[in-house]
Amino acid sequence: MKVKVSRKAHFNSAHRLYNNNWSDEKNNDTFGKCNNHNYHGHNYELIVSVTGLIDPQTGYVMDVSILKNIIKDHVESVLDHKNLNLDVPYFKDVIPSAENISIFIYDIIKTHIKDDLELEVVLYETPRNFVTYNGN
Amino acid sequence: MKVKVSRKAHFNSAHRLYNNNWSDEKNNDTFGKCNNHNYHGHNYELIVSVTGLIDPQTGYVMDVSILKNIIKDHVESVLDHKNLNLDVPYFKDVIPSAENISIFIYDIIKTHIKDDLELEVVLYETPRNFVTYNGN
Amino acid sequence: MKVKVSRKAHFNSAHRLYNNNWSDEKNNDTFGKCNNHNYHGHNYELIVSVTGLIDPQTGYVMDVSILKNIIKDHVESVLDHKNLNLDVPYFKDVIPSAENISIFIYDIIKTHIKDDLELEVVLYETPRNFVTYNGN
Amino acid sequence: MKVKVSRKAHFNSAHRLYNNNWSDEKNNDTFGKCNNHNYHGHNYELIVSVTGLIDPQTGYVMDVSILKNIIKDHVESVLDHKNLNLDVPYFKDVIPSAENISIFIYDIIKTHIKDDLELEVVLYETPRNFVTYNGN
Amino acid sequence: MKVKVSRKAHFNSAHRLYNNNWSDEKNNDTFGKCNNHNYHGHNYELIVSVTGLIDPQTGYVMDVSILKNIIKDHVESVLDHKNLNLDVPYFKDVIPSAENISIFIYDIIKTHIKDDLELEVVLYETPRNFVTYNGN
Amino acid sequence: MKVKVSRKAHFNSAHRLYNNNWSDEKNNDTFGKCNNHNYHGHNYELIVSVTGLIDPQTGYVMDVSILKNIIKDHVESVLDHKNLNLDVPYFKDVIPSAENISIFIYDIIKTHIKDDLELEVVLYETPRNFVTYNGN
Repeated sequence: MKVKVSRKAHFNSAHRLYNNNWSDEKNNDTFGKCNNHNYHGHNYELIVSVTGLIDPQTGYVMDVSILKNIIKDHVESVLDHKNLNLDVPYFKDVIPSAENISIFIYDIIKTHIKDDLELEVVLYETPRNFVTYNGN
Repeated sequence: MKVKVSRKAHFNSAHRLYNNNWSDEKNNDTFGKCNNHNYHGHNYELIVSVTGLIDPQTGYVMDVSILKNIIKDHVESVLDHKNLNLDVPYFKDVIPSAENISIFIYDIIKTHIKDDLELEVVLYETPRNFVTYNGN
Repeated sequence: MKVKVSRKAHFNSAHRLYNNNWSDEKNNDTFGKCNNHNYHGHNYELIVSVTGLIDPQTGYVMDVSILKNIIKDHVESVLDHKNLNLDVPYFKDVIPSAENISIFIYDIIKTHIKDDLELEVVLYETPRNFVTYNGN
Repeated sequence: MKVKVSRKAHFNSAHRLYNNNWSDEKNNDTFGKCNNHNYHGHNYELIVSVTGLIDPQTGYVMDVSILKNIIKDHVESVLDHKNLNLDVPYFKDVIPSAENISIFIYDIIKTHIKDDLELEVVLYETPRNFVTYNGN
Repeated sequence: MKVKVSRKAHFNSAHRLYNNNWSDEKNNDTFGKCNNHNYHGHNYELIVSVTGLIDPQTGYVMDVSILKNIIKDHVESVLDHKNLNLDVPYFKDVIPSAENISIFIYDIIKTHIKDDLELEVVLYETPRNFVTYNGN
Repeated sequence: MKVKVSRKAHFNSAHRLYNNNWSDEKNNDTFGKCNNHNYHGHNYELIVSVTGLIDPQTGYVMDVSILKNIIKDHVESVLDHKNLNLDVPYFKDVIPSAENISIFIYDIIKTHIKDDLELEVVLYETPRNFVTYNGN
């Protein structure tokens, strides 16, 4: 009997969608206003879920306060109130689309949880646009 | 590495649940107040999700603004501020339950996205009732 | 020391914005798609608030379960799963705009609460459009 | 063609996380403030989903009003405005974590729906913490 | 030019509505299930608003992070994961209704902000029931 | 009989809190992470409300679609997907705090609506922080 346990978090960042290898014109054609030269920003809302067996001693799949702290120490500390393009080395060569940010977050959290837990990351770029990544 | 990209939209419609082949009495017994002769209505909230590989050139599975326009041009234009039973030919013989509307929307959008993208439609009839359809 | 006590409720209705004294053309020009001949509909979300002194015996300004039942018996029973234009006599000659529906609801509830309570009605026609009426 | 139909409900309960077989010190170390001796509480928000084939006569996988009543009669009546540890016999020996409550709810509802319907329970302990259980 | 600045917070508590001076029967008749002997609980969502002039040096009426810390140190620390009736001395003789809790919170925060700021407290006992208090 | 009519909108922007006349150290001490040199960003959610008499011919205080377009043409077009500090001349010398942005928006919209309508602007910088300005 496996249960999925989910925790919401959030961070506020500036970013810009821009492909280094393209002309400004092609960037504008592709990314439109998301390519604004001086950046724009979002309140990213994040849902991190781990799936696994319940420990009968605690009733927990994983203590959510531990998950909360992993997100705080390893994701929020890196992304919150930052410019993703300029302040986060990973996004020097990777476009900080919601898709790529979700993989970045997944890969960080994966190293901090037990191997037998399945992981899923849902990332809301706006209340109307969001992505889901589970490593598959 | 596949990511699911989701976009929210909405439309406001009147409808009535009614089986043409049944007596009024059986319709009332089955559908209750949803069978109100003069229709009632809903703010339908729609979440359309596509799952696929990330294009490394754009960081996108699919440009959400394209998905937004597909929904606008092919779903909202057909269903928004309409009476589903009277104004949408598809529902002349199909009961416009949330289940059937979700399949209607799925089938429309499927024809406008690439074949290798998986599609899922979530349709909220009210904030408390919703359905999910993914073609399986 | 006055406290405002608020209760959320909801009802789902069909309606159409239409002025009986105008031509179809003028109605279309004024109300656009809200004038759709066969109606459209909404999930109306309603917040009813009463403001008054706290009864020291109960800690209540007004028992919310009583307020809930007033809304259920005198508002939801009249508006839920109805066509506002056709099924509610009040809207035969009054356009069922959110503004006018909020006054209709205010006037009903006002007769069922104590005279010394101030009343406010907030009515969401959609999650993006709403009105507030407090009798002033 | 299978559709998932979901219904939201809610109940308000007190609880305490506590392992009978442990010392107070170990309980405090493990559960922190969730172990508060005099209990604390939550507004649990519940989403129950059933997945199955659409009945072509009704357009329904399952009449949501029937699902609503199953939740009301067999879940809310047992958990709402209760102390989970003291008032619900099941949790005398089972820690009322969100994980365990979701299994409790799943097992109740499973006995009241048709065998060929898949069931999923999502339980929000707070707007920021929630669990998902589908019997696997 | 005055601006109102609002901050959301939350705490999870058990409580019971009960008048010490009444019989059990009268308490049951008045408070119904809210009188459950073993308590029930809520996720209280709190919105604290201060209204005042903007400091032209900072663009702030009040630094929201200071307001956040006042709420954390003086409200959440007292109410979160507590039994309001048993763990909070103020509610030994005052019924912990939403109305009375909002006044309790108002009076605490009032002592920690500047005299020339107007204060308002909105307290959600559930997503459907809430109260507002501004000291008048 | 006056009714308040409200419309929600949104825009996504980068910004930085920074006082030109202060040292970097004082800016850091005052604004903390909101002073991040390379900016951060938000999904601003905006609620614009106008209060006035109902036109008996339309049932409207003001046609919400006109209000929607005023917001789109004069607010969103200026702020959406922009860097408030660099791309909006008004904020060259005014700190783009939520308070100051709400006044900026109020002053723009005020020039586009009738003189006898009262105006209120609510601006969510995050789901947890928001401000309200009504010109008083």
